[in-house]
Amino acid sequence: MSGKYRIGLVGGTGYAGAELLRLLVSHPQAQVVVVTSRQAAGTPVAEAYPQLRGVIDLDFADTHADALADCDVVFFATPHAAAMHDVPALLAAGKRVIDLSADFRLTDVATWERWYNTTHACPELIERAVYGMPELNRAVLANAELVACPGCYPTSIILGFKPLIDAGIVDLERLIANAVTGVSGAGKSLKPGFLYAEMADSFKAYGVAGHRHLPEICQVVSGLAGQDVGVTFVPHLVPMIRGIHATLYSQLNDSTDLQSLFETSYADEPFVDVMPAGSTPETRHVRASNVCRLAVQQPGMDQGGGHEAIVLSAIDNLVKGAAGQAVQCFNLMIGAPETTALAAPSPVP
Amino acid sequence: MSGKYRIGLVGGTGYAGAELLRLLVSHPQAQVVVVTSRQAAGTPVAEAYPQLRGVIDLDFADTHADALADCDVVFFATPHAAAMHDVPALLAAGKRVIDLSADFRLTDVATWERWYNTTHACPELIERAVYGMPELNRAVLANAELVACPGCYPTSIILGFKPLIDAGIVDLERLIANAVTGVSGAGKSLKPGFLYAEMADSFKAYGVAGHRHLPEICQVVSGLAGQDVGVTFVPHLVPMIRGIHATLYSQLNDSTDLQSLFETSYADEPFVDVMPAGSTPETRHVRASNVCRLAVQQPGMDQGGGHEAIVLSAIDNLVKGAAGQAVQCFNLMIGAPETTALAAPSPVP
Amino acid sequence: MSGKYRIGLVGGTGYAGAELLRLLVSHPQAQVVVVTSRQAAGTPVAEAYPQLRGVIDLDFADTHADALADCDVVFFATPHAAAMHDVPALLAAGKRVIDLSADFRLTDVATWERWYNTTHACPELIERAVYGMPELNRAVLANAELVACPGCYPTSIILGFKPLIDAGIVDLERLIANAVTGVSGAGKSLKPGFLYAEMADSFKAYGVAGHRHLPEICQVVSGLAGQDVGVTFVPHLVPMIRGIHATLYSQLNDSTDLQSLFETSYADEPFVDVMPAGSTPETRHVRASNVCRLAVQQPGMDQGGGHEAIVLSAIDNLVKGAAGQAVQCFNLMIGAPETTALAAPSPVP
Amino acid sequence: MSGKYRIGLVGGTGYAGAELLRLLVSHPQAQVVVVTSRQAAGTPVAEAYPQLRGVIDLDFADTHADALADCDVVFFATPHAAAMHDVPALLAAGKRVIDLSADFRLTDVATWERWYNTTHACPELIERAVYGMPELNRAVLANAELVACPGCYPTSIILGFKPLIDAGIVDLERLIANAVTGVSGAGKSLKPGFLYAEMADSFKAYGVAGHRHLPEICQVVSGLAGQDVGVTFVPHLVPMIRGIHATLYSQLNDSTDLQSLFETSYADEPFVDVMPAGSTPETRHVRASNVCRLAVQQPGMDQGGGHEAIVLSAIDNLVKGAAGQAVQCFNLMIGAPETTALAAPSPVP
Repeated sequence: MSGKYRIGLVGGTGYAGAELLRLLVSHPQAQVVVVTSRQAAGTPVAEAYPQLRGVIDLDFADTHADALADCDVVFFATPHAAAMHDVPALLAAGKRVIDLSADFRLTDVATWERWYNTTHACPELIERAVYGMPELNRAVLANAELVACPGCYPTSIILGFKPLIDAGIVDLERLIANAVTGVSGAGKSLKPGFLYAEMADSFKAYGVAGHRHLPEICQVVSGLAGQDVGVTFVPHLVPMIRGIHATLYSQLNDSTDLQSLFETSYADEPFVDVMPAGSTPETRHVRASNVCRLAVQQPGMDQGGGHEAIVLSAIDNLVKGAAGQAVQCFNLMIGAPETTALAAPSPVP
Repeated sequence: MSGKYRIGLVGGTGYAGAELLRLLVSHPQAQVVVVTSRQAAGTPVAEAYPQLRGVIDLDFADTHADALADCDVVFFATPHAAAMHDVPALLAAGKRVIDLSADFRLTDVATWERWYNTTHACPELIERAVYGMPELNRAVLANAELVACPGCYPTSIILGFKPLIDAGIVDLERLIANAVTGVSGAGKSLKPGFLYAEMADSFKAYGVAGHRHLPEICQVVSGLAGQDVGVTFVPHLVPMIRGIHATLYSQLNDSTDLQSLFETSYADEPFVDVMPAGSTPETRHVRASNVCRLAVQQPGMDQGGGHEAIVLSAIDNLVKGAAGQAVQCFNLMIGAPETTALAAPSPVP
Repeated sequence: MSGKYRIGLVGGTGYAGAELLRLLVSHPQAQVVVVTSRQAAGTPVAEAYPQLRGVIDLDFADTHADALADCDVVFFATPHAAAMHDVPALLAAGKRVIDLSADFRLTDVATWERWYNTTHACPELIERAVYGMPELNRAVLANAELVACPGCYPTSIILGFKPLIDAGIVDLERLIANAVTGVSGAGKSLKPGFLYAEMADSFKAYGVAGHRHLPEICQVVSGLAGQDVGVTFVPHLVPMIRGIHATLYSQLNDSTDLQSLFETSYADEPFVDVMPAGSTPETRHVRASNVCRLAVQQPGMDQGGGHEAIVLSAIDNLVKGAAGQAVQCFNLMIGAPETTALAAPSPVP
Repeated sequence: MSGKYRIGLVGGTGYAGAELLRLLVSHPQAQVVVVTSRQAAGTPVAEAYPQLRGVIDLDFADTHADALADCDVVFFATPHAAAMHDVPALLAAGKRVIDLSADFRLTDVATWERWYNTTHACPELIERAVYGMPELNRAVLANAELVACPGCYPTSIILGFKPLIDAGIVDLERLIANAVTGVSGAGKSLKPGFLYAEMADSFKAYGVAGHRHLPEICQVVSGLAGQDVGVTFVPHLVPMIRGIHATLYSQLNDSTDLQSLFETSYADEPFVDVMPAGSTPETRHVRASNVCRLAVQQPGMDQGGGHEAIVLSAIDNLVKGAAGQAVQCFNLMIGAPETTALAAPSPVP
């Protein structure tokens, strides 16, 4: 036990929290010592998660439990606008913090406050946060004290656009990201629209006028491009539990071979898999896995005038889109092999 | 019985055929007298469709049954490249034909032969076919002898783009149609990818390089625009039984109020429902119904530079996308009220 | 409009209410004049039910709306323990009442109060209520003033056991009803277990120690048998929207041909369909329909000692299990053909 | 690599084969050296299973590949009546064989031949086969040369009945096993009934007259009881990918506390989890896991006369019901800790 990092998890009753526990119990350098929950304090973790019966033997602690004092690393899997209240004290106490919520994702405080409709509790910490996408920030993550894990949609969309933008070969005025999610992306929200009877065997768009992940996508994509980028993003809800799939459209202003570009771009990435030309990723093949699987379609004469590059991107919203990417960051932070506790293939079907 | 049209249905074992039977048994001016099926000839229709037990008391006839000689109107619900072999003789015998397959949809024979990869058996009849979309061709359908019912994707996409194109306010170089379908659109094809275990809880694109409905969409949209139009169309498969949802992107070059435009355009259409601003159609709300439900989003500053019009379109692929639209055409052909046998609301949930 | 019955619907926002509206708008002798809802009063019915846009043009009225004074027949589609407060006044005012809730199903007040855990508001009316199962009570329904519509599980189970019990050929000490339901049976309850993410791709039992439909089943089955009957009933939740399927086990003490027995028993029933020997009913084939479809398996040497009769029973819980059976009762009450507004076949797939 | 067992997998394209690969790639003492497939020989394993891209780098070998000569242990994940042709030579060559198919499950050859409708190719080997259920045969599995892994339904049902039968407290004349399965239990069979459009949102029984797992259940349960036992077994198909749930009914002839009985019986079993009284197992909580989760309901006055014991049993049909149990047997055979490669908790939701 001596060599293990002592882990605290704040907000352990949601889906991202459950996935963190699933991954961390298999991690040879991590020991989960406290899991907090406001509503469930005092009850066994395995009561909320029968899949962890016999695997984890903790009770939920109250959210501001002193037990966190004993941790080396604290993960937040809380709704937005919660972590920002506790993070300053934890950082001051020398803990490292990995926040899966949105509190430290946006570098512009005013933008954050407009989209999340509240005042930020510690705007001074935002610039200390590292955006937790290893494919962008691997080196700096090693020493990060505060990691802002990306949103699920942004993860799938940014990884899909990145090679095109890095290569400077697409029209930056009109990027379109048409994306779908399984319902676990909404967490355990008790809203009628998430009832089985209301969303099974159906499909709909939502957030068409603007979704909270849009400014995050714009910020990162603009950062890659070195200029403001116009992104249109429409999310949709699919009758499935997990998975995000993004279909990305952009006008190619060059005759680059996209398959080679993508393969080269991600040749060394352990969790980005570029499929052979002509393939289409399926969300089930990344279920419960940390892989982002991409396919790219060269513009062809049959499609829209022949200039449209189409990228398909699939992730598990709770893993590469949340808990898995957080563990990937944790691995970088502690100097462990990046794939530790993340190597198990998807159970299919 | 005297006043009823005698109906023949060719290819009655598929899903569109089943839906035609469901609708026609409630039609006061139709009597289904023969249903053919190559594989199932001689067995009761109600054995293939237990939902019709006690409702329809016919056996499947062999496909080239003489019984068709006795019909006034013949519907084809066959795979492509079948109807074209039988239609000439039926027209010559004075029957009126409503073809739900793709055989007479494309006006350019060479294009048809390229996409369907076979030689057309009666190219001379193509120009006599009326494209069976009442919202485009209501008047001419009244006297049509041969109706080519639209594909399911084209129906949802054309109705969504039409008001924008009629108004001449969008960039015709770059229309994007991102669409999804429930699996019944593939019919009863016994392919692994359509097995429950392979497609439940998952999402994927297909036909990314080009889908057979693309030339149909381009033909009709170009016809509306009076010029060649560049459409990019990416279909996707959703784990649901029925339903098509299209998310349409186009660059608005004008400040027209889109909500008013759409409401005005479709004010008199019995089966196109424009929802209030800010709404999103759900496919379940058109399940088993002939309604195409639309919503339109005015470009806003939060989305992609502020010029993108977004249209959402939902239909039931087997009803407005197939059997229902065919019955709607039939009603126009016989001078019946257009909503006959099509007025029942969706069963929800 | 003159010959139409004026209908009030109390509790119109639930699933059974939505189905009543769907069926009644097609009923030639019914006109829905008021739909009440406590939470939604003042908003358009079609806002809660987009599938009724253009079909019904009423706003929800407050629950105790005077508008009910104007009705001939009032349907209650409320949770249990609501109708009992309003029914006495309505009956006193000469209205006929069809209650889809549990308030008047159990003839023994003490039993009702124990299972529903509240005091009955009008126990004196219980004996005036007719149990609304036409297959049991067709004649008396014609003049009923107060109809207690059966529960969904009891409908499927009672119709399945009835021929065996009427024939006196099974061991009444040990009847087993293993049943499953789609989630719409729980209504729109906002409980975590009914979220899509919690119940998709999973199966579980519930109410194993005893479910509220158990005393109802026992009461009716014992009534048929003329003696107390021991029924074990275990309900389960299936990831589907609609449908109830019951698998019924009983020990046959006789060599009767069960196929003939069932076919004879239900020969004249418009909504009970006995399938051919060797068939198995599927819930999708009764979706949105009022049919109860049965199959019966003669005891065979391969199964458990050779004495077990197995009956399979499938209904749509919201139709034959709720709204459809209520309309069937309404038809009997007004002397309309029993199948009025109930004849449309299921949309399949 | 030196200390690893060299593993061959015959019939690697089915679902059980995929699961075996998923589990074995994480097994520290196993190295998969050959995977055979008749149809897919010569193509990469990761093409059939995109979830294994980057994880396994083998091509499918032809079924009778010489490569098997090089294996220490051979798993068969073939349809029934295939393994029996190859097993004799493999055993003769000193390989140990773990057969996931039905070929060696039934000890009575005539019974096997009747239910599987073919002649057994090596009846002399049947008595050498060990039934691969560690909870029954742990000790003897250590030295087994040929293991007949149990069927999925039998696994869930036998583990549920075992404590009751061992204790001698139930009526052995009438055991009822009402069970349901997700569709992956049928493998990749291209039958219409397994299409998404045909089985989503529906529920049905099948094999009501007798299912191939019935003689297996009877054989094992009778073996436990030391006498012939009458079991009635009705399987059903649920719209879910994985999971088996059995609801077991038996008449208790004693007042034993069942909760204690079950907890005691399985106290030392690593993969049988008895839930607290009043719980109900959900199949999703054992998804992709090797756990069999049980709950037991003491007879109560509200249910059927007060003598019915009800046991609920949930497994993943592809793991504890197939590949996982096979790996559990393999662990026993090689003297590895029994939970090796099987400890990962279910990903939920």
